[in-house]
Amino acid sequence: MSLTVVGTVAFDAIETPFGKTDKIIGGAGTYIALAASYFEKNTNLISVVGDDFPEDYLNMLKNHDIDIEGIQIKKGEKTFFWAGKYHDNMNKRDTLVTELNSLATFDPIVPDAYQTSDYLMLGNLTPGIQRQVIERMHKRPKFVMMDTMNFWLDNTPEDLKETVSMVDLLCINDEEAQQMSGEHSLMSAAEKILAEGPKYLIIKKGAHGALLFDKDGHIFSAPALPLKSVFDPTGAGDTFAGGFIGYLAKTDDLSFDNMKNAIIFGSVMASFNIEKFGTERIQELNKKEISKRVKQFIELTQFKIDPNNL
Amino acid sequence: MSLTVVGTVAFDAIETPFGKTDKIIGGAGTYIALAASYFEKNTNLISVVGDDFPEDYLNMLKNHDIDIEGIQIKKGEKTFFWAGKYHDNMNKRDTLVTELNSLATFDPIVPDAYQTSDYLMLGNLTPGIQRQVIERMHKRPKFVMMDTMNFWLDNTPEDLKETVSMVDLLCINDEEAQQMSGEHSLMSAAEKILAEGPKYLIIKKGAHGALLFDKDGHIFSAPALPLKSVFDPTGAGDTFAGGFIGYLAKTDDLSFDNMKNAIIFGSVMASFNIEKFGTERIQELNKKEISKRVKQFIELTQFKIDPNNL
Repeated sequence: MSLTVVGTVAFDAIETPFGKTDKIIGGAGTYIALAASYFEKNTNLISVVGDDFPEDYLNMLKNHDIDIEGIQIKKGEKTFFWAGKYHDNMNKRDTLVTELNSLATFDPIVPDAYQTSDYLMLGNLTPGIQRQVIERMHKRPKFVMMDTMNFWLDNTPEDLKETVSMVDLLCINDEEAQQMSGEHSLMSAAEKILAEGPKYLIIKKGAHGALLFDKDGHIFSAPALPLKSVFDPTGAGDTFAGGFIGYLAKTDDLSFDNMKNAIIFGSVMASFNIEKFGTERIQELNKKEISKRVKQFIELTQFKIDPNNL
Repeated sequence: MSLTVVGTVAFDAIETPFGKTDKIIGGAGTYIALAASYFEKNTNLISVVGDDFPEDYLNMLKNHDIDIEGIQIKKGEKTFFWAGKYHDNMNKRDTLVTELNSLATFDPIVPDAYQTSDYLMLGNLTPGIQRQVIERMHKRPKFVMMDTMNFWLDNTPEDLKETVSMVDLLCINDEEAQQMSGEHSLMSAAEKILAEGPKYLIIKKGAHGALLFDKDGHIFSAPALPLKSVFDPTGAGDTFAGGFIGYLAKTDDLSFDNMKNAIIFGSVMASFNIEKFGTERIQELNKKEISKRVKQFIELTQFKIDPNNL
């Protein structure tokens, strides 16, 4: 199959209790495409950068077999820049700088070669732009997944609702699910959100893992890998989403059982991502270490029980 | 095998957003023994009540094949009484009344018939009393599990430490694990606590499930059943512990794989407990509904993955 990803490609400057970085490559599109590239060999990326964006970073993406024809390079403009600082226990972060730059006028172009993609992943962006990408595909992809964030819930709720109604799978975190639905229970939140259009909902719970729901009442719960420390959580949610959609596109099997596996591969990718700054860790992974970590998840969660042994 | 439980048998008055109760039967010993009784048919209970404690409640325990020879009935004294009120989202509760009554001078007696128990469960109590029960067994049981709470961490930390060092398994919640170890990460907390003596540690995470750790670095993660609402969380942790130790005593298999199954049966019992006030739901369970819920946990958590499919 083939996967098209739309999302930011950016400069990030990150500070955690373990240290700080200069401007390094970041952005939802970067994390998603990198994570997906370990599974789906035909991964395309739609984004925009300024002409200050280093050739080296673009080559790094290409070296992961990511097609970057969809990344517009805006002459005389600068690349989207975000700087943030994490608190001691990594649960909260302060945004220090947000410079939209070339992202402010982002008008996504879907190259001809991407038009046949069966899988489309909409990284967190203005809901209107996410919708534009769906509309600019000549044929609606077989499966559309989207991420979003509380900023759009607060600022463009109607716009967000419209985009959500057009996708197959919505992937958000627990607080966003609660805010979107007005429900404290994630079960009740899922029921309300699935009534708004999507067939599937993933609720990310950070250190507590992730839940997958479908309209038929199926639920799957996956833990996060228990860790002594998180070096840098930036991009963990995007990396999770990238691993998930990459595996789904590669296997092209939309059964609930296969989605369970996609959740595990997504969780595995996220568990690597937080080990180093930015995308450093997911730039350098190999198949052997990914398989090894899947086995850790199996140990962590799988049991053989006789339900009648009482 | 045979299981001896020590813990409070009490009156509880509970208020939740769904309603309130008069004085009903409560206490850690009650919840643990009731939950265990569905698995281990030789379950004994050591506790103390006043002579105001209704015969009907004692008969209810007997009807679950629980041996109550170890429950002392103190003439002229009243039964331990706790009243609490839950906040809207059930995450927090206020204690309205705590009357120790007969519990204030509790001097646990281990009847001869309990002396051969291979499994001992110490419900949350003064650490000194928990220790007395171990010491009053003529032969140390094969497996000793204990629960405790932040109150003892705050007020009798050295006493608690001594009791913890004598048991095989400590079962506490996430906040208690963090407080006991001074570590935010539950992985790091587990490492420190396991260095204090116990071979196994269970960390309960409420709606996020439970983690089981052993000294060799094995970890098992089980979710809680996702629910639309919690009717009354009182005793959920004790019910979990009771299902766990009851299954372990019944199967008499201390392998890590069997402990995983015990965690699942414990989680199943806890998921029932919160559906009605107090012990109401776990008084009336049948094997068929327990097995059915185990199957729900299998659906919720089990997957078939090829770790090399990338």
